[in-house]
Amino acid sequence: MSPQAHVPAALPIMRAMTAARIRSAEPRDAADLVALIAALADYEKLTHLLELTPEKLAAQLFGERPPAEAVVAEVEHAPGGAKTVGFALYFTNFSTFLAKPGLYLEDLFVLPDYRGQGIGRALLSHVGALAVRRGCGRFEWSVLDWNQPAIDFYRAMGASVLPDWRICRVTGEALEKFGR
Amino acid sequence: MSPQAHVPAALPIMRAMTAARIRSAEPRDAADLVALIAALADYEKLTHLLELTPEKLAAQLFGERPPAEAVVAEVEHAPGGAKTVGFALYFTNFSTFLAKPGLYLEDLFVLPDYRGQGIGRALLSHVGALAVRRGCGRFEWSVLDWNQPAIDFYRAMGASVLPDWRICRVTGEALEKFGR
Repeated sequence: MSPQAHVPAALPIMRAMTAARIRSAEPRDAADLVALIAALADYEKLTHLLELTPEKLAAQLFGERPPAEAVVAEVEHAPGGAKTVGFALYFTNFSTFLAKPGLYLEDLFVLPDYRGQGIGRALLSHVGALAVRRGCGRFEWSVLDWNQPAIDFYRAMGASVLPDWRICRVTGEALEKFGR
Repeated sequence: MSPQAHVPAALPIMRAMTAARIRSAEPRDAADLVALIAALADYEKLTHLLELTPEKLAAQLFGERPPAEAVVAEVEHAPGGAKTVGFALYFTNFSTFLAKPGLYLEDLFVLPDYRGQGIGRALLSHVGALAVRRGCGRFEWSVLDWNQPAIDFYRAMGASVLPDWRICRVTGEALEKFGR
């Protein structure tokens, strides 16, 4: 959504606490991203909601005016060579009260074998730093209320977990009714 | 964000159950929008978070590639003439699992004196219908868990209120830290 999207040169490479390299996702990453998203859906017990293919994802992320952007975490010295072990996917949202855009992190995921090495923190920091550089008023995401390890991690990173907001959603047939 | 944004001719005028006209917001609506947003902030007990002026809002909503769009509800025969009595503000978000964009309703508000006439329903239906026309996979928003009249209204409109997701937010100084 922003002109600097998908220009890796404009993004800093963060190596603190981890050997993973964080970089903007490219079309060649689509299959790896779909595999990671499937692993995330399994962790969230939401596999039944998945309607994703590499082609569908690539069309959204790498088309003109993409509705979302992604970064990947790549480990160079994994068994079998370089491996994409995590990702963050985010888009621009808007705070009316602040009259400023924000960034919303739709997904953050690191493969179980690569956790505890600061890769999730590096991905979150990367997107948060991008929000600051773009002049955003806030950086937001959602967490399942039973995912205590994630909640603890986010609070340690400086996030507030808002207790009183609930997400409303219309999808499928209920959404079709709005169009009639 | 979409090419058809801010082109009133492309949007249907909904008059069902109400004498209010729903139309895309224009630069001349900025002061009315800010007054409505201030009334909304007061209702949500969030006035302390408001950093809005008509100039700031207009720069965001009516610039190039605006991060959000708005529609207003206008009553033609109010005391003193035509009056803007409600609004909806929304932006494009993205569902990774569906590999489709969605619409996210950031604000929906109708002045207390004009409630119970179907104006809120008309605003919500308008944005939901827009989501369908744009090929979105879902239409979402948030509600405060103590706002039972709103929750009942949204459920009656076909929305699910997700019990288990919590919103995480970083703003102000905590966000600045991400940029260092």
